[in-house]
Amino acid sequence: MALSEYIKTMLPTVEVDMHNFIKEAGDPDLFDLHKMLSYHMGWEDEESSQATGKRIRPLMVLLTTEAAGGDWKKAIPAASAVELIHNFCLIHDDIQDNSPLRRGRETIWKKWGKAQAINAGDTMFALAHMALARLSETVDASIALSAFRILPKVSLQLTQGQFLDLSYENKNGLSEDDYWPMIAGKTAALLSACSELGALIAGCPPETVDAYREFGYKIGMAYQVYDDVLGIWGDAVLVGKSTDSDLLEGKNSLPILYCIAHSEEFSARWKEGNIRVDEIAYLAGLMEKTGAKEYSLDMSNKLTNEALDILEQAKPRSPTKDTLTELAYLLINRQK
Amino acid sequence: MALSEYIKTMLPTVEVDMHNFIKEAGDPDLFDLHKMLSYHMGWEDEESSQATGKRIRPLMVLLTTEAAGGDWKKAIPAASAVELIHNFCLIHDDIQDNSPLRRGRETIWKKWGKAQAINAGDTMFALAHMALARLSETVDASIALSAFRILPKVSLQLTQGQFLDLSYENKNGLSEDDYWPMIAGKTAALLSACSELGALIAGCPPETVDAYREFGYKIGMAYQVYDDVLGIWGDAVLVGKSTDSDLLEGKNSLPILYCIAHSEEFSARWKEGNIRVDEIAYLAGLMEKTGAKEYSLDMSNKLTNEALDILEQAKPRSPTKDTLTELAYLLINRQK
Repeated sequence: MALSEYIKTMLPTVEVDMHNFIKEAGDPDLFDLHKMLSYHMGWEDEESSQATGKRIRPLMVLLTTEAAGGDWKKAIPAASAVELIHNFCLIHDDIQDNSPLRRGRETIWKKWGKAQAINAGDTMFALAHMALARLSETVDASIALSAFRILPKVSLQLTQGQFLDLSYENKNGLSEDDYWPMIAGKTAALLSACSELGALIAGCPPETVDAYREFGYKIGMAYQVYDDVLGIWGDAVLVGKSTDSDLLEGKNSLPILYCIAHSEEFSARWKEGNIRVDEIAYLAGLMEKTGAKEYSLDMSNKLTNEALDILEQAKPRSPTKDTLTELAYLLINRQK
Repeated sequence: MALSEYIKTMLPTVEVDMHNFIKEAGDPDLFDLHKMLSYHMGWEDEESSQATGKRIRPLMVLLTTEAAGGDWKKAIPAASAVELIHNFCLIHDDIQDNSPLRRGRETIWKKWGKAQAINAGDTMFALAHMALARLSETVDASIALSAFRILPKVSLQLTQGQFLDLSYENKNGLSEDDYWPMIAGKTAALLSACSELGALIAGCPPETVDAYREFGYKIGMAYQVYDDVLGIWGDAVLVGKSTDSDLLEGKNSLPILYCIAHSEEFSARWKEGNIRVDEIAYLAGLMEKTGAKEYSLDMSNKLTNEALDILEQAKPRSPTKDTLTELAYLLINRQK
């Protein structure tokens, strides 16, 4: 089955599960708290795929469950849990970065204030763990117990990655060596947990679970590197709103760190700070000439190839194996 | 064994467990993140019982485990987990309330900024769940699975209570009816989870676990009501730093809500807002005359009596039963 078919089958089921779960967990007297969560998830005002996000993480859980020989329906509590954890991170990230917009709409803190937004993120965090706890109804106790160790562990890794990201702000002299542990925590850890959970729920032996976890980790790294490329050269940035450029946000992305190391002109300008909108096109061109785009794209391809090699070792069943490959390619916008 | 003896035996063990657990979970490259957590827990600079807090929640877990016929050492992962959850709440509360001081020292956000403080709270939240996960090494899988449902559920209740507290700020027309669900979430839920976890780990049947949970709930309510009395008439407030008075903070505590309903003079002054330090003594006197102190003390006594009645139903073993009674009295400063 093609990826698009799986998406059409799996994702609405996860969406309904999250929707009902959040609704049932909420006390009717706490209507406004529920409204904040529901708004953030993209279910209020204007429900659209732009408002909800792409739900890549639950997809990864369910596809790996299938590929590893399991029944994806049993993994729904885990699929919902990882998406809720992801959204908890987004709510707090937006406060920490002072971002007024997320997915084209006002962020929670912008609408309800920072105190309530911190609490809404905490609520989402608690709900994620509650959502996962339902796994003991769909799988054996030993599998559920292992799964319950994965979510807190990945939550810790996410906060460790975020710690690094925050501590890099306004810090000069950063290099690629600082970059990898940051994205390992911020992005790869959760995708890694997704494929690990999938394999675990499918009942795989430990070495196969390890291979799936490593597959997700590499996919996560590749995905973040490609996202960094879009942050400088994406259509939305160059053609559309150049205000979204990572150059303006001073983000320590891979192409930027590469350029700092390889272009004196870029490095000097970066150190000065406060890059203006009218400089974006020139700097993006300079970065491309320096080889930052090629280097980053090569890196995302290399990581994806490594991921797919590891996937082979896990001996995934057909045809879901091809679907996972399709997903890996989609995440870095690579043609087959 | 008297409460003081149990405290001397149990609490240092929990302290060492939390200390080692946080240390081992941290990546050595994340020294500063570890430092924030360690500082907040009261282990940095000046280790003292004032800096660490009283650790009432782990004590409740361990004493109920003993009283319910279990081995308190098996409950240490749960004791550490509830204390970490409590501290996660404190870190975020301080940001939300803009409080510069906690236990006589600067708060995390004051020292490291709000972005890092939000993340430090999230890290503490993740660590709490990781700490609890170790329970599968000390108890049967079925008990561990039940325990893993309790922590996320109580985390949700804590955030629901905090939502109410935040939404009451600058809101007029609040009454006692608004108060009880707020403190049920903010204070009673966690103490309730403590005694529930203790009984569960001891291997009690469901109805006994229910009784212990209800016991902790009532103790938590009584404790909060008494704390509200101290917030107006405590030595630290009246004799020492009157700047800590709940009157200045505009806190919707029980005696204040009682006075709003029973004294027109007080109600009118409260509505105006911005109560000054030089008014504290007069207003505290007015509140006492209105009967707010007596009402609140009666209420905390009544709740404690109800808690002890429920404890009887759980048939706790001697002599820990008496120790639990001693703890219940200590929390509302009542003589035997």
